[in-house]
Amino acid sequence: MALAVEEQSLAIRAMAAADEISQRRLDRIASHLRATSLMKDEQLAAEVCAAAAKVSKRPVSVSVLTHLMAGGYPEDRQKVLDFFLKRPDLETPVEITKEQHRELAYKQLLAIVREAGVNPMKYLMEDPGQYFALLEAVGYIDMSLAIKLGVQFSLWGGSVVNLGTQKHRDKYLEGISTLRYPGCFAMTELHHGSNVQGIQTTATFDCMSDEFIINTPSEGATKWWIGNAAVHGKFATVFAQLCLPSPDSHLDTNMGVHAFIVPIRSLEDHAVLPGIEIRDCGYKVGLNGVDNGALRFHDVRIPRDNLLNRFGDVSRDGKYTSILPTINKRFAATLGELVGGRVGLAYGSVGVLKAAATIAIRYSLIRQQFGPPNQPEISILDYQSQQQKLMPLLSCAYAFHFATEYLVEKYGEMKKTHDDEVIADVHALSAGLKAYITSYTARALNTCRESCGGHGYAAVNRFGGLRNDHDIFQTFEGDNTVLLQQVAADLLKQYKAKFEGGALSVTWDYLRNSMGTYLSQTNPVVTHRDGHAHLRDPHFQLDAFQYRTARLLHTAALRLRKHSKRLGSFGAWNRCLNHLLTLAESHIESVILAKFIDAVDGCEDKDTKKVLNLVRDLYALDRIWKDIGTYRNQDYVAPNKAKAIHRLVEWLSFEVRGVAGSLVDGFAIPDSLLRAPIGLQSGQYSEYSHYVGFD
Amino acid sequence: MALAVEEQSLAIRAMAAADEISQRRLDRIASHLRATSLMKDEQLAAEVCAAAAKVSKRPVSVSVLTHLMAGGYPEDRQKVLDFFLKRPDLETPVEITKEQHRELAYKQLLAIVREAGVNPMKYLMEDPGQYFALLEAVGYIDMSLAIKLGVQFSLWGGSVVNLGTQKHRDKYLEGISTLRYPGCFAMTELHHGSNVQGIQTTATFDCMSDEFIINTPSEGATKWWIGNAAVHGKFATVFAQLCLPSPDSHLDTNMGVHAFIVPIRSLEDHAVLPGIEIRDCGYKVGLNGVDNGALRFHDVRIPRDNLLNRFGDVSRDGKYTSILPTINKRFAATLGELVGGRVGLAYGSVGVLKAAATIAIRYSLIRQQFGPPNQPEISILDYQSQQQKLMPLLSCAYAFHFATEYLVEKYGEMKKTHDDEVIADVHALSAGLKAYITSYTARALNTCRESCGGHGYAAVNRFGGLRNDHDIFQTFEGDNTVLLQQVAADLLKQYKAKFEGGALSVTWDYLRNSMGTYLSQTNPVVTHRDGHAHLRDPHFQLDAFQYRTARLLHTAALRLRKHSKRLGSFGAWNRCLNHLLTLAESHIESVILAKFIDAVDGCEDKDTKKVLNLVRDLYALDRIWKDIGTYRNQDYVAPNKAKAIHRLVEWLSFEVRGVAGSLVDGFAIPDSLLRAPIGLQSGQYSEYSHYVGFD
Repeated sequence: MALAVEEQSLAIRAMAAADEISQRRLDRIASHLRATSLMKDEQLAAEVCAAAAKVSKRPVSVSVLTHLMAGGYPEDRQKVLDFFLKRPDLETPVEITKEQHRELAYKQLLAIVREAGVNPMKYLMEDPGQYFALLEAVGYIDMSLAIKLGVQFSLWGGSVVNLGTQKHRDKYLEGISTLRYPGCFAMTELHHGSNVQGIQTTATFDCMSDEFIINTPSEGATKWWIGNAAVHGKFATVFAQLCLPSPDSHLDTNMGVHAFIVPIRSLEDHAVLPGIEIRDCGYKVGLNGVDNGALRFHDVRIPRDNLLNRFGDVSRDGKYTSILPTINKRFAATLGELVGGRVGLAYGSVGVLKAAATIAIRYSLIRQQFGPPNQPEISILDYQSQQQKLMPLLSCAYAFHFATEYLVEKYGEMKKTHDDEVIADVHALSAGLKAYITSYTARALNTCRESCGGHGYAAVNRFGGLRNDHDIFQTFEGDNTVLLQQVAADLLKQYKAKFEGGALSVTWDYLRNSMGTYLSQTNPVVTHRDGHAHLRDPHFQLDAFQYRTARLLHTAALRLRKHSKRLGSFGAWNRCLNHLLTLAESHIESVILAKFIDAVDGCEDKDTKKVLNLVRDLYALDRIWKDIGTYRNQDYVAPNKAKAIHRLVEWLSFEVRGVAGSLVDGFAIPDSLLRAPIGLQSGQYSEYSHYVGFD
Repeated sequence: MALAVEEQSLAIRAMAAADEISQRRLDRIASHLRATSLMKDEQLAAEVCAAAAKVSKRPVSVSVLTHLMAGGYPEDRQKVLDFFLKRPDLETPVEITKEQHRELAYKQLLAIVREAGVNPMKYLMEDPGQYFALLEAVGYIDMSLAIKLGVQFSLWGGSVVNLGTQKHRDKYLEGISTLRYPGCFAMTELHHGSNVQGIQTTATFDCMSDEFIINTPSEGATKWWIGNAAVHGKFATVFAQLCLPSPDSHLDTNMGVHAFIVPIRSLEDHAVLPGIEIRDCGYKVGLNGVDNGALRFHDVRIPRDNLLNRFGDVSRDGKYTSILPTINKRFAATLGELVGGRVGLAYGSVGVLKAAATIAIRYSLIRQQFGPPNQPEISILDYQSQQQKLMPLLSCAYAFHFATEYLVEKYGEMKKTHDDEVIADVHALSAGLKAYITSYTARALNTCRESCGGHGYAAVNRFGGLRNDHDIFQTFEGDNTVLLQQVAADLLKQYKAKFEGGALSVTWDYLRNSMGTYLSQTNPVVTHRDGHAHLRDPHFQLDAFQYRTARLLHTAALRLRKHSKRLGSFGAWNRCLNHLLTLAESHIESVILAKFIDAVDGCEDKDTKKVLNLVRDLYALDRIWKDIGTYRNQDYVAPNKAKAIHRLVEWLSFEVRGVAGSLVDGFAIPDSLLRAPIGLQSGQYSEYSHYVGFD
């Protein structure tokens, strides 16, 4: 069918409706259309756009931006990308079947480990920053490859390293590193995803044989969505309820969730081992290069040594020992080691956002449609509506970049120091940033596709694939709605600590101050100030973000206390759930803004710094405007100020549009990775025509 | 990888943060987990959910709902569905290659026309309501089939019928109806989608041979995205600038865009005809059963008779005649005939929304995760956050249903009466509803996928396919951003007419009254009223919607007038573009609410009517709350009232949750069409296990 059938005449009438001299203008436009309809493309492109499309072109240095946005380990990234550039046989085609895709992703992974001279397991253990840089680079090659790599090293490898002890590392690490032992991470079950403590798979100790017996007691206990299980995996780390026979009862004692290494396929002939049923979870919305499977266990026996026993162990005579006192503490310790996955997803999600923003903005710059009378058509990025769609999104890509760089840094620090405050900080921060950023990017991918119209719907232009692959980032490694609740819970803990005089950790430190602000009255002079200098002052912006967080926190605590009397704490939490989610998002936005302010402060090129200030202002004020109801309801912002913020957001979008091309060039994603013809640095239409087969 | 890895212990700590007696409770939960972890699925399902999940179960009749929501032509729909039920060979598999999908969609289409005894072309010409009902039913089989059918009949057939004259109908109609003449609608070009008047393909009249010569003068003029072109089409309606040689000049005179029938493939051997280049647009984000192609013409000669000459004709001696005086009027008339496509998309989009809502809500009812201490887990639909995601969405599915039923009715009236006021009304209404509903549904599909977590990511559960197929609804038959501008322009025309004393058409009539309200002051007593009876009064709700529209309209007119002095009307329009888009959306929301109110008023079953009132209240108040900043800024709503609205939206979501199962049952989508295992009426988990291959 024809895409984007449109009645320009109606649009012309639209303009006429606001104009007294409509007929004269209609005639002018008609004659203009006659004059230009046969104009050559090159002429059109060369002509300077008209009055309505006046663009503010501020000086900005792409090389300064590129340097600022490079992230760590540029040589490592380049090494992997260069390797793939020389291997067109490893390139994922635009259309590919599930089976082909799975084989290709495995081939790509093998090539990285065995040919490109990269050792992801070593990176992961010795320098997480290097590992995340690798993951991001590999994600540009194919997101399935990045996830397949993550399953093998972060999840399967990570569980052995972090939940096991030296005997496990000695036995498995080399095989994991070299991919001789491809493995799975079998936690999720058909009935239990978020509530991991509710899983039903059992591992019952048999004292006689010194073995654990793994069982799937019900349909709901089937392990589900297990990556690497459908085709390639030889082992699985299986999470199960550890059951010990009680000497004085016919009932087993459940010691809670533990992890066990279970061989699932023969090392010799890859046959599925006895007692194990494996099914293919089948075609997915995206990431079809990852072979997710479903697993059932029927009296599968494994040696006692296969218990990953860092946090809890069973002796030869069936006695349980642990360095931690309760089931919940052991469970928290077990899962706490896996926080790295969230860091990787938050980081990778920013990469996806940058790629999509680059494609959408470059296309919106070359795409011209309609224009003022007697003048050439204008770029669609000159329309206020397109600026509103894409400029705040671009500002978020910058904002999220700095926030996730900070997160990776903190994560590295945590792995080095094992400091309790840093651990708590990284847990909440990784949960919050993962949830906030992946939700934002998922929405942004739709916006980008839609803003590129029909050409955005061609698979070769990437939005569909990126969206389908990225979509599940919102769910795995912690459902976003659940993760945000952890952030809210952490804030409430901090809040309680404050009022009990305890110390606050560094990240949440600001709450102390802004709660001071809140508990005093807002200042009526400030609520009315609406000048640019005030609104663009980062102190005002950060105060607005933090004020909102502090107020949401304070009122959440009051409401929870009130409702818990009647509903109990579970009921009260549920009654306030929307409020708590808003609180968590608000907090994460504050953290992102704070990091953005720091990053801009650190930019030494004066002109580029001015541009980055625009981008930061847009990020901050667009957020405030989007939640203006809250600010108005609390009279933090007077009506005149609300209007001024709105006007300023439109002005900032217009100003950022003037440097949008340079800002996406600053992401420095090479054409060979971006691939989308409409998103290339030049010759987009010709490349696109060439792609469909025209000379 | 494991999906949705989660630390319940952190969530438990979250609750504890709000509770003084946290340690005692943690112990209770731990013992509870030990007790229930091995519980059988059936037991879990059978147990009544706990205190926190108290559900308000109001009486409601599914059969009344089904009757109310049945739409027209239930027997016709059933006939098609029954036909496909008996033909499993025509069912589209979950994974299918582009080539296979194209052949299957064509086979499905042939079967409808030649075996099922359905005549879409006849429906389209004689009873559009019947045609739209067919389209919706067929969309449930496969969206590609619905679009392929639309290309053949609405676009190719519709262009012949509506833009041609009797000679064209005589020559082509029978072949189109029977699919002997599969055809294309070649309007969009590589460089021009929305701005159709900017297309560059030429049709130059050659007086000597009495032929038109069709040419593609530049790369940008390549016809692009043309459905049916890559594989099946034998003809194309080609839109081109009609050029007449001037006797007194060497330049041609451009008479504007006209439509021409151009044979593109041989009727004998299907070979591409001389002078025509066809390329395959390739793999798309979705709708891969439709074969979109790109076309170039090199001196392709067609008889003069192939000009579709209803609105403009060329005589044997090269003289141009038309019943319409200007290029723009002819262009508007040409495209105006094609408004039916938008009606179909708005209507079809509601069908997609209903299907997605059914799957997401049924799954959210059976899915249980976490729960209060010492009690079974609760349905995820009992969480306030899940209610917030899905209940307003469900209310929109109801609201949009009634609005599109009304649109189809008006469209039928227009085709019968050709009344000018009805035509204007249908144009604006179809543009607005198509834009508003398809944008909403696109977002809703993401929400539904995300709200079903990992299982929502299995292709078999439909969200991915529905989203990918539906995505382009936002773009084709008029880009949503452009369509909303038409609505805004129409409102501005009405506004001008009002102040010039002209009559308003029926649909926009309310503006007269509410502008009266606006121009007087808002009443401080009313702005503070916050009782349920007042907030749930449809008069208050409609007034709030219309007040906002009237105010946006009034201020838009003032701003356009002000800016046009300095920026010209094109510049002024662009400067106010975001404002104008908000105005258009606000207006459409009012229309939807008004139709919803009428429909609920018409329900005769007392209990069901009460439930529908809840649904309507939720639709209305959720919209008001989402835009509360605007209402607060204008002091239409005082702070206490804003808070009351927020609380009421949460309460309504909770109440609607209690009848959500019945409300989706009311859509009456049979399991055989819904297909998603997690969305079936019963046995979802077992069907899902069965699907992946377990016994």
